[in-house]
Amino acid sequence: MAQTFEEISASDFFYRNRDIAGFTNPSRAIFVAIREIVENSLDAAESQKIPPEIFIRLSFESEATKDTQIYKLHVEDNGCGIPPRFIPSAFGQILYGSKYKLKQTRGTFGLGGKMSLLYGQVTTHQAATITSSTGDTNKIYQFKLMIDIQRNRPIIIDRKVLINKDGWRGTIVEFSLEGDYLRAMPKILEYFKQTAMVNPYANLTFVDPKGRLYKFTRVTTIMPEPPKETLPHPYGVDVELLQRLIAITECTNMTDFLRRHFHRVGEITAQKFLEFSGLTPSKNPKKLAHEEIVKLTQNLKKFKDFLPPDASCLSPLGEELLRAGITKELNPEYLVVHQRKPSTYGGHPFIVEMGIAYGGGVPKTGSFVIYRFANRIPLLYDEASDVSFRVIGSMNWRRYKVSPDMPIAIVVHLCSTKVPYKTVGKEFLADRAEIRREIANELREVARQLGHFLTRQEHVDREKKRISIFSKYLPRIAQFAAILAQRERIPDIEKLLKSVQKYGAEEE
Amino acid sequence: MAQTFEEISASDFFYRNRDIAGFTNPSRAIFVAIREIVENSLDAAESQKIPPEIFIRLSFESEATKDTQIYKLHVEDNGCGIPPRFIPSAFGQILYGSKYKLKQTRGTFGLGGKMSLLYGQVTTHQAATITSSTGDTNKIYQFKLMIDIQRNRPIIIDRKVLINKDGWRGTIVEFSLEGDYLRAMPKILEYFKQTAMVNPYANLTFVDPKGRLYKFTRVTTIMPEPPKETLPHPYGVDVELLQRLIAITECTNMTDFLRRHFHRVGEITAQKFLEFSGLTPSKNPKKLAHEEIVKLTQNLKKFKDFLPPDASCLSPLGEELLRAGITKELNPEYLVVHQRKPSTYGGHPFIVEMGIAYGGGVPKTGSFVIYRFANRIPLLYDEASDVSFRVIGSMNWRRYKVSPDMPIAIVVHLCSTKVPYKTVGKEFLADRAEIRREIANELREVARQLGHFLTRQEHVDREKKRISIFSKYLPRIAQFAAILAQRERIPDIEKLLKSVQKYGAEEE
Repeated sequence: MAQTFEEISASDFFYRNRDIAGFTNPSRAIFVAIREIVENSLDAAESQKIPPEIFIRLSFESEATKDTQIYKLHVEDNGCGIPPRFIPSAFGQILYGSKYKLKQTRGTFGLGGKMSLLYGQVTTHQAATITSSTGDTNKIYQFKLMIDIQRNRPIIIDRKVLINKDGWRGTIVEFSLEGDYLRAMPKILEYFKQTAMVNPYANLTFVDPKGRLYKFTRVTTIMPEPPKETLPHPYGVDVELLQRLIAITECTNMTDFLRRHFHRVGEITAQKFLEFSGLTPSKNPKKLAHEEIVKLTQNLKKFKDFLPPDASCLSPLGEELLRAGITKELNPEYLVVHQRKPSTYGGHPFIVEMGIAYGGGVPKTGSFVIYRFANRIPLLYDEASDVSFRVIGSMNWRRYKVSPDMPIAIVVHLCSTKVPYKTVGKEFLADRAEIRREIANELREVARQLGHFLTRQEHVDREKKRISIFSKYLPRIAQFAAILAQRERIPDIEKLLKSVQKYGAEEE
Repeated sequence: MAQTFEEISASDFFYRNRDIAGFTNPSRAIFVAIREIVENSLDAAESQKIPPEIFIRLSFESEATKDTQIYKLHVEDNGCGIPPRFIPSAFGQILYGSKYKLKQTRGTFGLGGKMSLLYGQVTTHQAATITSSTGDTNKIYQFKLMIDIQRNRPIIIDRKVLINKDGWRGTIVEFSLEGDYLRAMPKILEYFKQTAMVNPYANLTFVDPKGRLYKFTRVTTIMPEPPKETLPHPYGVDVELLQRLIAITECTNMTDFLRRHFHRVGEITAQKFLEFSGLTPSKNPKKLAHEEIVKLTQNLKKFKDFLPPDASCLSPLGEELLRAGITKELNPEYLVVHQRKPSTYGGHPFIVEMGIAYGGGVPKTGSFVIYRFANRIPLLYDEASDVSFRVIGSMNWRRYKVSPDMPIAIVVHLCSTKVPYKTVGKEFLADRAEIRREIANELREVARQLGHFLTRQEHVDREKKRISIFSKYLPRIAQFAAILAQRERIPDIEKLLKSVQKYGAEEE
């Protein structure tokens, strides 16, 4: 073999394949770096149901190459904070949960802010500074960190303890990175705008390298319930996962094992399943042979009487908040929002929420403006590859009296314990059949309501025209009629006008 | 924190995020599993310039769920073989080259066949059997392997040594996996067909679960030169890579360091660069301070006098082979192929080769049939996201007298030391500006030639019509003229016909 080979850590893998994690070029990189940190901050605040206050500052440090510069990124939040013993790993090591539980989060893949810091480090070779306090202490901890990329370990350059006079709680992340802000700017601003739309309870403040301030102010302090952890569902299980659960379980019989580690499996369901698969309830899971584990996996998928995944662990936005967010950002003339009943794919629950906004502040661009969200983060790239785009494109809009040249915006939000991203860069949603179906059904629902509105609008407009014609000519006719009849007094036509109005009255 | 966290190996990361590696659903999974192994085999044969003989058999083992079954996949090749001490790591561990060199390969990301085996293992919990011999020995080695996914280590279940009576050389990979072959079949057959097109020197034989045999026979034994290893180019360097090179280098001064580790940096270029960046030629690279390393990285990108990447390390197909492959598969009436001069992006050299085929066996589908290849593997998914599709779509075809309803196929092949895949599943090429530009220019070139052909065709057709009219009526006119002139002998019109032919003669 020409080369010697060595093992590679997860961080090294993503260092070598940064494109895969979204860091394709200097302008995309600066966007991704910012979004990952901001999304961590949102998750941190929401986990405690604290209305988020997030301050982001990007300041110019120096020129780098012809098209790129070095910037310092500073993100400050009022979230739950991180205990000092976890700070180095939280930012300097690619980790993964070890309890095999599922939860709806913005960050996925265990990468999050670490890729941002890794990117900053490989382009500037400067340490990151993380400052945090959990609030229930009079101490603030400050770490200067770098990542040992080859070993996937944090390197603590410095550690300080500061006095927490004001009882501050939150996290500050600061690091330098190379990027092309000029090119990235429109996308970054769009990102904040859309993040504000779908998190209308958050205050976001952004100061750009030129010192310009962008403020996105909350319109409510109402927040959805935070997402909850949940157990894996039998339908989403494979042999490897089963093996690992068996390895870590403290249960000594199959009934307890099923009830403890799987979603919505109670005493009765467990018994029925064990009967179905021919396993003794008292059997110790650790004593299952290889072939039995394989059969068990297949049976878990075949058994029809498992309760479907319960979506109570999810945290959708809710119709009220979605409406508030869209209204704030788009100020439409007409808006319909709707949340579908939960559904599932591959053992994961998901909920689709949609809004369709018409007129008012919605721009007219010749085609629908589509806003895509997943777990309350905006998806801003590769629209044409996204399942929503495909569904919207293949819909028979004429049926709803809708056409793309109207000022219409469609907002699609999917929340799930596992968002079907095609890429680590979280650019778009893959075309999964179950998700496509739900989005299509939801789109028909909101399109139907918009169609009714447009039909009514059509009638109202026609009626207005009609009334306008009457108002224009009736007075003259009355006048001429009076002359013809040699009457002095011109008949009162107001009553007449009122009686021919069909729709106008409700409008005025 | 709610969960305990632990480190995660590269294999574990891809186990948990199989969608990212292309294993999105049971039909896609069976396709990806097959392609990865076949591509390993092609790389193995080509590295020794051996015309590949690859035999693939997929046999049904048992039912699994409602839509999926368990299959055994068997792939046998005549490649270079793998020495026994490397077999466990080659299949049971995700590895990466440690010498920081670049090479054009089909497999990327260091994943290759390991993901296929990992997928088979997590769906069937059965071991894989790898049999191999490097041919220069009378021994054949056979391993039964599984992967310790959490630790990214191979587990050797069994190891045999067999007598190599016939001096066989090659590798056989055999493992079981769950999949939906019915749904995957069209894509798998298309994959073989396209692989045969772009590797016309290979014999591929596929036996499907129903016992049907598909044979793709080579049309030539001429093979391109294998790709060569090359050093990274200064323009593609970052701080982390520089640090690592400094850590492993045996060079004790900057001049040697630059010449040894970078592509096309000779004595003079090294000296000029060191002058440009203000570094002493005799300085020991291991003595560079952090800030100096960052400055060095920026200067490596700024310095304008580095020679551009040399594409001699690449292995394009070449116009002759590309022509042979397309002719074999499509049998067009007209075919133009062309290879562009090399270009670069991000410090990586690349070459675009293109073919445009018209008529004959090319199907008429209402739009162009597009065949996409990268490093001689077919890309079969997400066509609309691919840069080639976008370039083809935005071209002004009328200028070349071409329209999508004609029977036209466009073949695009990109080879590079780093293919700009957007995803680990290698579905499509990202839209990099340099690549888009080269594809667009190449497309104009081949379209221009096709345009000339079509214009000629138009003239030929018109001429044929004209001649046909003459041939139809001239004899009668001659006949009637003879009668009118009261001559017995009818004039000979053959000469006359020949004299009015303009294009016909060359055609016949």
